[in-house]
Amino acid sequence: MSSFSRLVRFLAKDGRTYYGDAILPHGVTDIAKAKQAKIIKGQIFGKHDVTDQVADIRLLLAPLALEDVNTVRCLGLNYEQHAKESNMPIPKYPVLFYKPITSIAGPTDPIPIHPLAQQGTGLDYECELVAIIGKPCADVPESKALDYVLGYSVGNDVSHRDWQIKHGGGQWALGKGFDGWAPFGPGIVSSKLISDPQNLQIWTKLNGKVMQESSTKDMIFGVAKTIAFLSQGTTLLPGDMIFTGTPQGVGMGRKPQVWLKDGDVVEVGLEGVGTCTNQVEFIKAKSKL
Amino acid sequence: MSSFSRLVRFLAKDGRTYYGDAILPHGVTDIAKAKQAKIIKGQIFGKHDVTDQVADIRLLLAPLALEDVNTVRCLGLNYEQHAKESNMPIPKYPVLFYKPITSIAGPTDPIPIHPLAQQGTGLDYECELVAIIGKPCADVPESKALDYVLGYSVGNDVSHRDWQIKHGGGQWALGKGFDGWAPFGPGIVSSKLISDPQNLQIWTKLNGKVMQESSTKDMIFGVAKTIAFLSQGTTLLPGDMIFTGTPQGVGMGRKPQVWLKDGDVVEVGLEGVGTCTNQVEFIKAKSKL
Repeated sequence: MSSFSRLVRFLAKDGRTYYGDAILPHGVTDIAKAKQAKIIKGQIFGKHDVTDQVADIRLLLAPLALEDVNTVRCLGLNYEQHAKESNMPIPKYPVLFYKPITSIAGPTDPIPIHPLAQQGTGLDYECELVAIIGKPCADVPESKALDYVLGYSVGNDVSHRDWQIKHGGGQWALGKGFDGWAPFGPGIVSSKLISDPQNLQIWTKLNGKVMQESSTKDMIFGVAKTIAFLSQGTTLLPGDMIFTGTPQGVGMGRKPQVWLKDGDVVEVGLEGVGTCTNQVEFIKAKSKL
Repeated sequence: MSSFSRLVRFLAKDGRTYYGDAILPHGVTDIAKAKQAKIIKGQIFGKHDVTDQVADIRLLLAPLALEDVNTVRCLGLNYEQHAKESNMPIPKYPVLFYKPITSIAGPTDPIPIHPLAQQGTGLDYECELVAIIGKPCADVPESKALDYVLGYSVGNDVSHRDWQIKHGGGQWALGKGFDGWAPFGPGIVSSKLISDPQNLQIWTKLNGKVMQESSTKDMIFGVAKTIAFLSQGTTLLPGDMIFTGTPQGVGMGRKPQVWLKDGDVVEVGLEGVGTCTNQVEFIKAKSKL
């Protein structure tokens, strides 16, 4: 359904921002290593063309511009081993929550930690396969659900466990919705290239050390089942993103627990897509409350 | 901050859709009764003008077009008496959750009940004051928070208690996010006209019978406090909506409990704004799963 293979959005050496189809050297699969891309003209979720015009990439940006993103859905407890490490039962239905579009960030952006999220403990990472919806989708059967996927990316569902679990009255939104807490990238690989999203290695490295390492095989609700379920009575729109949950190995589940600190570098990666690497940055509030 | 007094979006008798500034007959305060409006030209969240051109209203639509809405935030348990009827403690922080933009609907639209939401019991209404953010807002102090409000409306946070509470793994999103489950209207009253949003009568009538009747005085976190809190580290954008919670009297809290049925007519109302009246309509799925 898409004309591109590996969608990227980037600042080019000419100082302008483009959508492009990443050009990868032979044998390279991590889009983060792309140095050039063919410029895409038009609307990503509408009529567009991959041109023959090649641009040099200076910096990869979030693969979708904020104005092209609609709703960001996330699943909780969607890997069996992660549900177990969280001491939670295997869910009968997808556990759904949302992030605001302002949580979207790019594959090299810092993760800003606001003073509110510097309080208490529990700053954590979650590598996730991200499915991007490409066309309106209502009541689709599981057998056809993947036809509605534009492509796949990898993202980090950054979470603050205290705000997520202790202070939000049971609702996870507060501790997961801060600005920049859904970095994703490095690009979006067309669903033409990934016919089976349920057989991909997925991982997190914290300061170079592997913390999560699993396969999307371990998902409880695979991408197709998730889309079929969520699209019942709720129309999914082009530009909707679905973060499909994280495998075991999050900081909260470790003994002893591991929390992100100022300056930490977190890489989340997905086979066939590449890596999204973000540095934790403690910031100040914009004004004093 | 707005040039209009009572923003409406409407289908006019000329067959076109406009934004307008509602013209109310002397002594009338319910925008739902407006027959005419001055046409607004330009961008609601950008440069726009209220013209002298008057159009006849055939049908009021959702006061914001889908493309002008960004993120829909909602608060749970934000009225003292409602927290009590729900047997929940008074929250220490705002209890935040989200609805997708596809839940937005207008002040006379039917509320579609998908077969998934016809299962089990617990179809319920929640009248809520809705604050619409008018300009980008980050880390604003409570004393200045209302300056960022474009205006106020009234909405219905339609909920299915089984899907919300029993089947969602504790997250409320599933049972509150269906298409059309956040009708609001009949218009947006400028914050110029409502200087104190914490002293307004708010109500629900079900088939003409009063079910909820309270004042926004009973809110635990008022609009200013809510915006100040939520804008900490999370930038609120023009077109963001905040459903600020519901007072006591929801169907779930009544003895015996009262659930919405096919054909029921629900009116939610807010003093100085007016009424939003929607009929419950059980529908079929778009395709068979």
